[in-house]
Parts: sequence; structure tokens; C-alpha cells
Amino acid sequence: MATEYIAPVEEFVFLLDEVIGPELEQADSDLSGDDVRQILDEAARFFQEVWAPLDTVGDEQGCVFRDGAVTTPAGFRQAYAAFLDAGWNSVAAPAEFGGAGLSELIGQAVREFASSSCNSLGLYSGLTNGAHATIRRNGAPWMLEHVVPFMVAGKWTGTMCLTEPHCGTDLRLMTTRARPEEDGTYRLTGTKIFISGGDHDLADNIIHLVLAKLPDENGAYSNDLSSVSLFLVPKFKVDPISGALGAANGVQVGGVEHKMGLKGNATCTLNFEGSIGYRLGRSDTGTCTSSSGMRGMFEMMNSARLGTGLQALASAQRAYTHAANYARERLAGRAGNPADRSGAPADPIIVHPDVRRLLIKQASFIEAGRALGLLVRGWLDEAGSGERARRGAVGRFLTPVIKAFFSDRAFESSNDAMQLMGGHGYIRENGVEQLVRDGRIFQLYEGANGVQALDLVLRKLGADNGVAFFSFLSMVREAGQNIGPDSSLLPHADALMAALQILEECGRWFLDDSRDAYDAGASSYDFLTMIGIFSCGYMWLLMALRAEARLRSSPQDAFSQRKLHLAQYWFDRELPMIASLKVRVQTGHACLMGLPAELF
Amino acid sequence: MATEYIAPVEEFVFLLDEVIGPELEQADSDLSGDDVRQILDEAARFFQEVWAPLDTVGDEQGCVFRDGAVTTPAGFRQAYAAFLDAGWNSVAAPAEFGGAGLSELIGQAVREFASSSCNSLGLYSGLTNGAHATIRRNGAPWMLEHVVPFMVAGKWTGTMCLTEPHCGTDLRLMTTRARPEEDGTYRLTGTKIFISGGDHDLADNIIHLVLAKLPDENGAYSNDLSSVSLFLVPKFKVDPISGALGAANGVQVGGVEHKMGLKGNATCTLNFEGSIGYRLGRSDTGTCTSSSGMRGMFEMMNSARLGTGLQALASAQRAYTHAANYARERLAGRAGNPADRSGAPADPIIVHPDVRRLLIKQASFIEAGRALGLLVRGWLDEAGSGERARRGAVGRFLTPVIKAFFSDRAFESSNDAMQLMGGHGYIRENGVEQLVRDGRIFQLYEGANGVQALDLVLRKLGADNGVAFFSFLSMVREAGQNIGPDSSLLPHADALMAALQILEECGRWFLDDSRDAYDAGASSYDFLTMIGIFSCGYMWLLMALRAEARLRSSPQDAFSQRKLHLAQYWFDRELPMIASLKVRVQTGHACLMGLPAELF
Repeated sequence: MATEYIAPVEEFVFLLDEVIGPELEQADSDLSGDDVRQILDEAARFFQEVWAPLDTVGDEQGCVFRDGAVTTPAGFRQAYAAFLDAGWNSVAAPAEFGGAGLSELIGQAVREFASSSCNSLGLYSGLTNGAHATIRRNGAPWMLEHVVPFMVAGKWTGTMCLTEPHCGTDLRLMTTRARPEEDGTYRLTGTKIFISGGDHDLADNIIHLVLAKLPDENGAYSNDLSSVSLFLVPKFKVDPISGALGAANGVQVGGVEHKMGLKGNATCTLNFEGSIGYRLGRSDTGTCTSSSGMRGMFEMMNSARLGTGLQALASAQRAYTHAANYARERLAGRAGNPADRSGAPADPIIVHPDVRRLLIKQASFIEAGRALGLLVRGWLDEAGSGERARRGAVGRFLTPVIKAFFSDRAFESSNDAMQLMGGHGYIRENGVEQLVRDGRIFQLYEGANGVQALDLVLRKLGADNGVAFFSFLSMVREAGQNIGPDSSLLPHADALMAALQILEECGRWFLDDSRDAYDAGASSYDFLTMIGIFSCGYMWLLMALRAEARLRSSPQDAFSQRKLHLAQYWFDRELPMIASLKVRVQTGHACLMGLPAELF
Repeated sequence: MATEYIAPVEEFVFLLDEVIGPELEQADSDLSGDDVRQILDEAARFFQEVWAPLDTVGDEQGCVFRDGAVTTPAGFRQAYAAFLDAGWNSVAAPAEFGGAGLSELIGQAVREFASSSCNSLGLYSGLTNGAHATIRRNGAPWMLEHVVPFMVAGKWTGTMCLTEPHCGTDLRLMTTRARPEEDGTYRLTGTKIFISGGDHDLADNIIHLVLAKLPDENGAYSNDLSSVSLFLVPKFKVDPISGALGAANGVQVGGVEHKMGLKGNATCTLNFEGSIGYRLGRSDTGTCTSSSGMRGMFEMMNSARLGTGLQALASAQRAYTHAANYARERLAGRAGNPADRSGAPADPIIVHPDVRRLLIKQASFIEAGRALGLLVRGWLDEAGSGERARRGAVGRFLTPVIKAFFSDRAFESSNDAMQLMGGHGYIRENGVEQLVRDGRIFQLYEGANGVQALDLVLRKLGADNGVAFFSFLSMVREAGQNIGPDSSLLPHADALMAALQILEECGRWFLDDSRDAYDAGASSYDFLTMIGIFSCGYMWLLMALRAEARLRSSPQDAFSQRKLHLAQYWFDRELPMIASLKVRVQTGHACLMGLPAELF
């Protein structure tokens, strides 16, 4: 039985209208708060009613591989078709390609609802949107005409093909080859694994974006990353002139993986057997370059990383709703304070402080994470220079944090939801254990979280000598300094400023020239966690400020009272962890690197 | 495919011979280190060869409920029979009942091997041992004659029946009734759920220990805990005079649960339909009292809690071995320091600091936990007065910590093993995801971990005004003060003493009369975690001391060098967390209790 799902429409309206919108220069100024609410209410109804009940079916049936093709669980085809019909696949896609052209912030809200209601089904669509964005930026004109509109409409889906059996993170080792043909196309040969949505029965065609190696001038393939390019490889051939669908393109499905969870999404092995591929990567003059293709892939990866963090958060949201309902209904024990007791033999377990701790821990992460996800999305989408460029850089800096910290905390969060249910949480029919299993993948795919931490420290912090990092700290400092002297939030702001000092010190520790080659790796993970906790603190300060303002005019506003409570939790119980994490970071690699490999 | 399992014999020999043995007044003085090694080598071979391959089978097939009875997965019957034949079920049971009469410390080593190699199969036996210990202490003479020997031999198994559909922790609410008969027996009626090993095909009989309510003098059943007694209820009747097995005793199996993991162990619903029960609880004069039965149940629970923590640790041990092997074999990236690079295009991932962090984090918890588990077991078994009684009290104080902290950290540990494997960790065939799913139960059953934290603070800390807690701190202080002035471990000892101060302050905070009714609950969980981290630090100090001594005579001793590295990790990266956790603890319930239930 699937857990109930209630989409958090009010949360998004609050964030878009009052918290994140005002932080961005160009929010959806053409949409009023009422417009937003109306769109999201409609989306909420759709995903609650049509998608949410399928989540369990997806887990129980999984995807079936037979006779070379994948069948999705019962009901997925119809629910996906209904999703396309209602326009939810293309809500944030540009109007010129058939999308609704709404902002990415609205798109992100809709994607959260999709992920919460049925993460495995939502992933087919999420990857498609990432793929057509990459093609839009890097594809040839015929692709924009004959491929992208089908993907925007969701009639065709997309994948990202990077991993091979022996190589994931280390793309240098890849062995999939792209042999140039005289007509400017390529023939791809090789095996890719872990391809989400690699095959299925939802769409008429699948557009694979495939990393493969080009031969050097002597026809040899090297271990050099510069030989890797990105190719568009359709499942069924597409005529570049007419756009007509043709024969199968030699992409054989080798099988689907048996996984811990997210079973409704087919994770495929794909064998490319001389498949025709088209190289992606467009310079301003319209010619392809290898580096622009790789850049396109990295853009897609970054977008997928943001998406992964938010998928994780969406999963935690559903678990939280279930746990909160359970805690209000399940009776056990008596309230510690006799004045809080009902007359019944036992009280609902929500009277117990440790149960509340588990719930508030979940909610305070989820709500701050949602805010941060929207803010980063907004920053990344604000093209431009000066202040906008600076914010874009901060958005890129925070992308690995959103991927890793969100997926770590979301997993912990769903586990907390399960924990609160005691033994009942372990029973499949009660639903939450599926969310735990499904949610475990988000720490692993799109670059395992340890890789995100390295990306944060080596590339995002190190590459520009910390400019993006220090810009971020400046933003937060400014927000802290803007708290009025009569605000009840001054202690929170002070705590955040103290944490900021600690982070600054740690950032400088990493940037210090004297650091050993291993220090960054040894301490990157804890640093990422610190940034995650701190960023959520920043969000809680912004949200609490709005809540305080609302309460000045409406002292009974329960929504705002709730926000102040959750903010207090974060400042009381999460932010203080930064002090101990700093000690960890600054121990460096001493305790890690001395042990010979055979002694582990 | 099951993960490989290598039983850590050398670890146990080191602990029993050199670390924990010397801390106890009566270790296995009749066994030399060589004897211990021989026994454990034999056990290791058995569990590695016979049980370890069944772990996957248990997960894939699960237990099948058909025609009112449960069938265990293929191979379980044979492997269980071989286990009995080899004598492993009764290794630590008293010789007078047919056991081998070895110490509980040896028994604990064997149980770890059993749990690591096949946790679901091991649980049938673990519960049996807990049950016959309870019967030995609280049963009538005929039970000692006709029941206990069969359980010691493993021909009959045992269960513990507490939970009902609407009540787990809150036993007051239980509705299972025991109606007294004229012949001194009782008729039990009611439904129990989540009964591990509640039915199966491994043994000739199952002895259920059942909590049920006695009527008051008017025949009425109350919500008063004092009306609850403990009953022995066999699946098949046992003639108290002859011991002959009789007809079925009206214990109907209602079904088996579909669970996240540990699927090879049947978790049953049992309906008692007028089943004959025998009340447990023996005073010195041989008569039964309700309170002694409840005490017996609590003893069984405490033993089961220790066992649960150790089951969790056993699961983490297996995941760790797999992860360490994977890290030595999987190639990706290059060592940060060029001097550490192999000539190959990529190095084994164990060269990367963040991979080592994940491994050392696992090993340093597991090895300290194993030591603490043995020490606590030893303390609990040292009957006596004075110093022995004081250590017994410390053992009882630490029991909820072993249950909750071990299961929390073991779950994290197996997840770290999975994390290190990237996407491969999520694939069922690679084995670790099963250990994660199996291991999740240990945080939930035998009292969810939040309940353990309450037990720690309210009963174990609070009941005697902290005597056991302060005794524990004194022990650790003494160990710290015994470090010689020329020891390289002085910094570790200093760090441990600083942590001790913090713990002492937190303990006094809980004991402070002015504390609100909700503060204990609000801060109990973080306090338990602090004690867990601190206790493992204590173990690392003891182990590092021995390692240091060994290295003085054998400077190349790799085993000891390894121990010093792991100790350094714990003091560098785990112990410092105590400082931030203290801040959390002392915020009390302010951020938790203000929010109305409907706003969650």
C-alpha cells in the first residue's frame, strides 16, 4: 500500500512569492501568487491522484526484460501518457519547442511533486528534460527541428550514457569507441551500464546521449580524456532531413539490473553495436568541437546533480507526511507533563519529545532544502554578468552540496520516518521502507557523494581560489547584518555569523598552499556537510524573517509560527555541529593515509 | 551472490587474551590463548563454509507461509542441523543442561560468526538461548528437566512474545489474557505480532515466552502493568510429568510479515486460542510471583538488547570485509601523490583518502564495538558484590547504548560499505545492499532506539541518581591516568579525559532537579550517542595500550600498527563530535515541544 502523498503547495507559494522570488532579479514576474497557486494546485491533484498510487506497483512489479525489450510496471504507460496530456512534462520547456515556457522554479515544483508521487516514473521524464536541454545548447539544427520537439512533448525520452562496467567516475578508462564515417556521422561500439530509462515501453523513441572516444590521427584510442566526445544516438534511426523514424539503430538492451529500489525505473545495460551517432558540440560558428561536447555533458551532469538532490528531498517529503500522520494516530505511553495528557489510556506518540525530534529533524531539513534548491536553480538560470554572474558561480559552487548533502540528509530523513514507526516501519505494506530503499540511490548515482565532495573542494572551491565560496559567505553575511535590532532572530543571525567564521577558516585551510595532496580528499566530505548545514541555516534565517514579518500583521498565523519553530530547531541542534566538524576537517589526512592497503 | 565472509578470529584472540580478559576477574582461566584460537578457528571454518553461502538464499526465498505453517528457505534445515551437530548452539550453555559450558565470551564470538554468516538463521538460535536462560532462572523444576535440555540442544527453539498489533513499547495496553485454571495452568487468548522465529520447520517444538494479563479478583483485566505476567506456552504440548510431546496447543500462525530484509527469519503473527500456558517466576521458595516473571522478561529483553547490538555489528563486519576487498581491486583515478601511483592507467581506489575514510570509519567502530560488547558481557556475568556488583551495574547502564549506538553505527557502517562501491553497491547481486536492508531491523526491534535512549536516561542514569554512570566515568578516568608519561598515547588519553568532563557535565544536567519533564526525552538520544562515542574511545585507549606494548617488543607487528591507526582515527574524527553533541543536549526541549501536533 502506497503511503499517502500530499503535495506541499502552500510551501512553494510561500517560497516563490515571499522568500526566493524576492532574492532573484527575474522571478516569474508575469505570474501572480494566485496564478502560481492555481497551477500548483492542479499539479498536486494530478500527481496525488494519478501517480502516487503507482509507486508501490512500480516497486512490486519492477521492470521486466524479455525478448530484448523492457516492459514497465502495470499502469506506468497510462500514467505517463496522462502526464504528457496534462502538459506537465514540458511546463518549463521553451515555447519555441512546444513547452509551456514557465520558469524553471515552477518546473522544479512540478518535478518535486512527480518525484514524491512516483520517483521511478518521474525519472524517465527528468532525464529527458536534461537531455533535450543539452541538445538545445549543443545540437545541430536538424536535431532542434526533428528531435527536441518530440522530447519536449515527451513522445521520445532521453538518457545519459556514461558508465561502463569497469569505469564510472574515471572517464579516461572508457572503451566505447566512435569511428568517424565519411558522411560526418559516427559508428559507436561499446557497452554502457546503469543507464536509467535505457529502455522501456513509454515512448516511441529513446535519444541516448553517449560518451565515446574518438580515434587519434593514427586510428588509435588513448586513455586521454580529451579523446572523449558526446554523441546523440537514437534507439530508432531518425532521418536528419525529413525527421522520419527509421529502423533500429543497433542499440541492444543487455538486461535490466536487479536493484535495492527504484525498481520501476529500468536500469539497463546497453550494447552499442555499430550504432549511428551524431557528435554534439556546437561552437558559435556552428561546427562541432570535442570540448564543447564534453562541456555539454558536464552541463547535463550538473543539472542532473541538482535534480538528484531534489529527487531525494521529494522522497523524504513523502516519508515525512506519512510519519507525521502516524505520530498523530498511534497511541503509546503518556505525555511527560500530566497537563498534556488526554483522558485515554495512552496518548498519541507525538506527545513524546524524541518522536517530535525525529519529525522536526525531517521537516527542518526538507523545508530548508526546498528553499535552497529553488534559490540555486534561480541563480543558475539568471544569465548575465556582474552580480548575476557572481550568483551563478555561487549556484555552481552549491550544486555538489545539493546533490550530496540533500541525498545524505534525505536518506537519514526517510530512515527517521521509519524509525518513528518502530517495527511497523520495517514491514513492506506500510510503505516507508520502500522510500528508504528507493532513496538510497540518490547518494550513489550521478557521481557518488564522495566524488561530489571532491568536486566541491578541488574544482568549485579551489579552481578560482575560492571566489565563489567567499561570494557565498558575503551574501550570507549581508543577510545576517540586515536583521533589525529589535528582531527576535538576532540570536539566530549571531549563530550563523559564528558558523560563517568557522567555514571561512576551513575554506582558507583548504586553499592554503602548504596543504598536502591528500588533505583535500581527506577532509572534503566533512566540509561539504558543513556547507550543507550552513546553507540550510541561511535559508532558515530568510524564512524566519518572512515568518516574523507575517506574524507582525497576523499574530495567529500558524504557518509562520511553524516556520519559527523549525528555524529554532535548526539553530539549536544542527548548526552547532559545524564546530565539531571543523575539528575533523583540520585533522587532515594523518589518520587515513598511513595504513598500508593490505592492512584494511 | 553472497559477499565473502572471513571470521575475525585474530581479533577475538587479541581481545580475549590481551585486552578484555585482563579487565575481568574471572575470564576463561581454564582456556589458554591457543585453546581459544583452536575453538574459534573451527567455528570460523564452519560458519564461513556452511552458513555464509545461505545468506543470499534466505533473502531471495524468504520464509513461506502455507497451510498454517512456515517453511524456511532451501538449505536452512540442513545448515541448522549441522550447526547443532557441531555443538555451536550450546557452546556457552551450562554443562548440566547439556551445553559445553564455555564462557559467555566465547559464546559471544561464536554468535558473532553465526550472525555475520547468516543473520536470519542465527536469530532462531539466538532467541532460543535467551529463552532457555530465562526459563532456567524462572522456570519450574519440570521445565528444567523436560524443556531446557531440548532448547540447549537446539532440538526445540524459543521465542519472545510481547508485541500486539496496537501495542509495542507500551505494555500496559496489551490485551492477551491468561485465564487461570484449577490445575494451576492458564489458558492464553490473544494475538501477538512480530514474533521472530514464531514458526518454522527447523525444530520439533517451539517454546513461546508470552506476556499476558491476569484477571483481578473480580475477573476483570486492567491497564495496569502489574497484571502482566510471563508464561511458557509450547507449540506442542509437553507432559510435565513424562516430558512427552503431545498435541498442538492452539497456537495458530496468522501469517508471516513481508519485510525490508532479514527475510530468512520468519516474523510471525501468532494467535493464541486457549493455549495452555505455565506461569514463569520463581521465588526462592519455588512459588510463582508476577513480578518475578516480569523481571525474567526484562532480563531476557536486556540479553536480547545486547544480542541485537552485536547482531548489528556482525552485519557491519561482513559489509566491511567486502568493501575493503572491493577498494583494493577496483581501479579508478590516480593517487594524489605521484609517488604513490602504480604504473597502470588507474590505481585501486584504496589510494583515495575519502575511500580510506569510509573504510577506517567502519573498522574503527566495529573493532571498538566488539571490544565493548565483550567487556559488558563479562561485567554482566561476573556475579558478586563490591567491585563486581559495581561493574555489573555499569554493564547494565551500557546495555541500551550497545543496542542503540551499535545498531545506528552498524547501519551507517554497512551504508558506508555500499557507498564506497558507487552504483555497484545498489545492485542486488553485489550483496552489500542486503546487509543494509537486513541491518535496518536492529535499530527497530527489541525496543526502538529512541526507547533505549529513554531507558538510558530515565532508568539507567536516573534511577540510582547516576551511580552506575559515575562509576563508569571513574573506570575510564583511572584508565586514562594509568598512561605512562612516555607513552605516545598521552594525547589520546587527554582527549578522552576532556570528553569525560563534558559527559559528566551532561549527566549532571539530566540529574538536575530543575529539569522539566520533557528535557530527558528531548536530549536522551544525543546523550546516548555521546556515551557510545566515548565508550568506543575508552576501548581504543585500552587496545592502543596493548598495541603499543606489543610494538615495543615487535616493532614490525602489523596487527598492532593497524590498531594504532584506527585508534588515531577515532580520537581525531569521532571523539570531537562530543563537544557539539553537548550543545545539542543542553538546548533541552525548547525547540521541540512548542509546536501544536496538527502543525507537524
